[in-house]
Amino acid sequence: MLFHVVMTVRIPHDADPAMVKELGAREHVRAAELQRQDKWLHLWRVVGKFSNVSIFRVADPAEMHAILESLPFHPFMDAEVTALCRHPGALAGED
Amino acid sequence: MLFHVVMTVRIPHDADPAMVKELGAREHVRAAELQRQDKWLHLWRVVGKFSNVSIFRVADPAEMHAILESLPFHPFMDAEVTALCRHPGALAGED
Amino acid sequence: MLFHVVMTVRIPHDADPAMVKELGAREHVRAAELQRQDKWLHLWRVVGKFSNVSIFRVADPAEMHAILESLPFHPFMDAEVTALCRHPGALAGED
Amino acid sequence: MLFHVVMTVRIPHDADPAMVKELGAREHVRAAELQRQDKWLHLWRVVGKFSNVSIFRVADPAEMHAILESLPFHPFMDAEVTALCRHPGALAGED
Amino acid sequence: MLFHVVMTVRIPHDADPAMVKELGAREHVRAAELQRQDKWLHLWRVVGKFSNVSIFRVADPAEMHAILESLPFHPFMDAEVTALCRHPGALAGED
Amino acid sequence: MLFHVVMTVRIPHDADPAMVKELGAREHVRAAELQRQDKWLHLWRVVGKFSNVSIFRVADPAEMHAILESLPFHPFMDAEVTALCRHPGALAGED
Amino acid sequence: MLFHVVMTVRIPHDADPAMVKELGAREHVRAAELQRQDKWLHLWRVVGKFSNVSIFRVADPAEMHAILESLPFHPFMDAEVTALCRHPGALAGED
Amino acid sequence: MLFHVVMTVRIPHDADPAMVKELGAREHVRAAELQRQDKWLHLWRVVGKFSNVSIFRVADPAEMHAILESLPFHPFMDAEVTALCRHPGALAGED
Amino acid sequence: MLFHVVMTVRIPHDADPAMVKELGAREHVRAAELQRQDKWLHLWRVVGKFSNVSIFRVADPAEMHAILESLPFHPFMDAEVTALCRHPGALAGED
Amino acid sequence: MLFHVVMTVRIPHDADPAMVKELGAREHVRAAELQRQDKWLHLWRVVGKFSNVSIFRVADPAEMHAILESLPFHPFMDAEVTALCRHPGALAGED
Repeated sequence: MLFHVVMTVRIPHDADPAMVKELGAREHVRAAELQRQDKWLHLWRVVGKFSNVSIFRVADPAEMHAILESLPFHPFMDAEVTALCRHPGALAGED
Repeated sequence: MLFHVVMTVRIPHDADPAMVKELGAREHVRAAELQRQDKWLHLWRVVGKFSNVSIFRVADPAEMHAILESLPFHPFMDAEVTALCRHPGALAGED
Repeated sequence: MLFHVVMTVRIPHDADPAMVKELGAREHVRAAELQRQDKWLHLWRVVGKFSNVSIFRVADPAEMHAILESLPFHPFMDAEVTALCRHPGALAGED
Repeated sequence: MLFHVVMTVRIPHDADPAMVKELGAREHVRAAELQRQDKWLHLWRVVGKFSNVSIFRVADPAEMHAILESLPFHPFMDAEVTALCRHPGALAGED
Repeated sequence: MLFHVVMTVRIPHDADPAMVKELGAREHVRAAELQRQDKWLHLWRVVGKFSNVSIFRVADPAEMHAILESLPFHPFMDAEVTALCRHPGALAGED
Repeated sequence: MLFHVVMTVRIPHDADPAMVKELGAREHVRAAELQRQDKWLHLWRVVGKFSNVSIFRVADPAEMHAILESLPFHPFMDAEVTALCRHPGALAGED
Repeated sequence: MLFHVVMTVRIPHDADPAMVKELGAREHVRAAELQRQDKWLHLWRVVGKFSNVSIFRVADPAEMHAILESLPFHPFMDAEVTALCRHPGALAGED
Repeated sequence: MLFHVVMTVRIPHDADPAMVKELGAREHVRAAELQRQDKWLHLWRVVGKFSNVSIFRVADPAEMHAILESLPFHPFMDAEVTALCRHPGALAGED
Repeated sequence: MLFHVVMTVRIPHDADPAMVKELGAREHVRAAELQRQDKWLHLWRVVGKFSNVSIFRVADPAEMHAILESLPFHPFMDAEVTALCRHPGALAGED
Repeated sequence: MLFHVVMTVRIPHDADPAMVKELGAREHVRAAELQRQDKWLHLWRVVGKFSNVSIFRVADPAEMHAILESLPFHPFMDAEVTALCRHPGALAGED
């Protein structure tokens, strides 16, 4: 099943820059891993924001939740999750 | 360039059902055309809504506007348009 | 998988009362059917509103969408759909 | 009487992790206790959020308030409380 | 139990004035009845609005819902219902 | 004249607990005083919130403002103030 | 006592233009009357809106409500009413 | 030209009380100065809020901006600025 | 002085298409006139909306209001008006 | 392509004033640079706010994002980005 997720990261202004940098590096590693597993299908940057628009394909809602909790930026992240399904007008399959 | 568009259709309750049906048929034809032209890259249904989440690849903002105006449901549609760009953590290209 | 759905019905004030009454009767028949199939697990009235809070167990998001589209009040209904999963603190299973 | 409660927990980023962990452990103990007493009837995780959707059956509004105040995460919690009643279309009793 | 209700009436501009006048007369009769039964404890006008702030004492949420549905202006009314309980700082009893 | 006030208290998470406890004790004393003076007519707890719904009878708006400024929790309080008047459908006087 | 009122007029697009014109003429007559009585102290147009910002001096909230109900545009008007009092930094009296 | 400004002051709870007191004193001095110059025409307190409603008469928008920046509470202030003009129904001149 | 205006046009779905077309033609004529007079300095389409972003240079707020009222689409238009001034970081003059 | 950007800066009240002053100086240098490169076409101050309204001309959305990330105030800035295109009623070219 597919989920549309908008993630917005808000780093507190008094956070330790070294910690933020390390989290960012680990976030990229984890994101790459999930993309290679064909779970994180699409990942785009929203222009002008510390936000992304993402499409995930997961086995069930629990996996979606676990993936978001596994992201290094998770403690500073707001995630808006929307369930998607195939559109009757789509030519391709659901992804 | 890529745009993320959320389209929500609101048909007035006193609209002529035959007109709505015909618009829906023409909407599917137009959507298929734009998908075959690789302009409408992704099209998903939002569960429980008369809404879709779409990704478009267009030459410029004017083309994006013209495409939305060309849709048969356009007079009954609210479109939220967001510019996207490549995410530094994305493995694939921008689409 | 489980979905939490808040449905709010808005009948236009100039709708035909006989039509509304008939839709209401058909809505109850359809709701009973879905409850007997163990798809519509819980159905509560929100005090003071023409709204309900519902929990559905469905095979996938497409089934959730199809169920909502099958409801007689669907043309007059706004549905807010939220994906649920098991809470780590819940003693029982997910429903 | 039944209440629908959406609880959202917001831990300040500079809170002591040990304190948060201990609160979480105590929260699970208290939640289990209330479930065994048949007061906390349902408890679901909202996908992607540090939020839950819950249904409580209590003797009166004062008990509902006291239960929420008794939760270890209460100081960091926003609770949206909605009174429910039996829906005329529900086959089962109110829970 | 006590409920705080804010009722806002919105009459469509093309409603029949005679019908509105009759509903208003019947609304006053019904409101008087509920006040004499000690169910509608307080009823105030919000300055500048076709709204009221009301306090109801009812046996349970179902009675609260039934009372609101019994009001002649109900089809044109939006009701925001909030459960109240005794405040620890209140000198008097709960009403 | 009557005012409807919804007060919501937000204590910063790093406030000194002894200070908060002392403020709470002084708040009760002040609230009792105002109730005995027949200025604070009604005081209810909103279920699940650190909020109350209150009705005040004061000589003029300046007194209403001065009362709210005199409350010990005032620095941590958001107050929504609404002017009330007698409702034409109310049987009793305005309070 | 003083009230700050923001009135916004929304004329339905299918209203009879002659009726609207007549209401507008009567609105000006009534507004002039209330200004001459020193009840409607200030009246400004909000740039770009069919809205005004007004300051009223009235004997009590009931008079404020009655004045707004007496305005010819009242059926098409949304009024946001805010109680004012003297500001400690104001040199002049309260108006 | 006239501007309607709603200023809301939010003092961080951990600000130095002596600093806040001094800012308040300087704010009154500056406000008096601007009132004597006939630039700050009206200044009212919003009941129950650390907010005011003000009317300014300035030469141009740049002066309006400079005045707001010159206020001692400016770093803790949110200002909502609305351009006003003469209302066709106003008997007096624009102020 | 400069104003930033966001105009959004909402044509009722049952409006006469010939009337809408004629209004659109007259709107273009009026917009051209105001641009040639150097009052309507900039006019952009918002992608995907029946909205524009505009910058006006006018003598005073009354002229801004009169210009917006003179637009043929005015009865179907919502206008959000914001006063601008020169930015200290701008190299050019204010337009 | 053109983007409309509303930037709002929020400096935490406990930020080091020397750091804020230095960021402001560097912001002006960077803004001047981008204006000289004809990328930052227009820059206006919103009256009463630490906000600006800006128009950018960039090669693509990625450049728009990179420009905003390059601004010294970026860590304290909220940017609302809207894609623009030529308006059919505009006499001039798109800028």
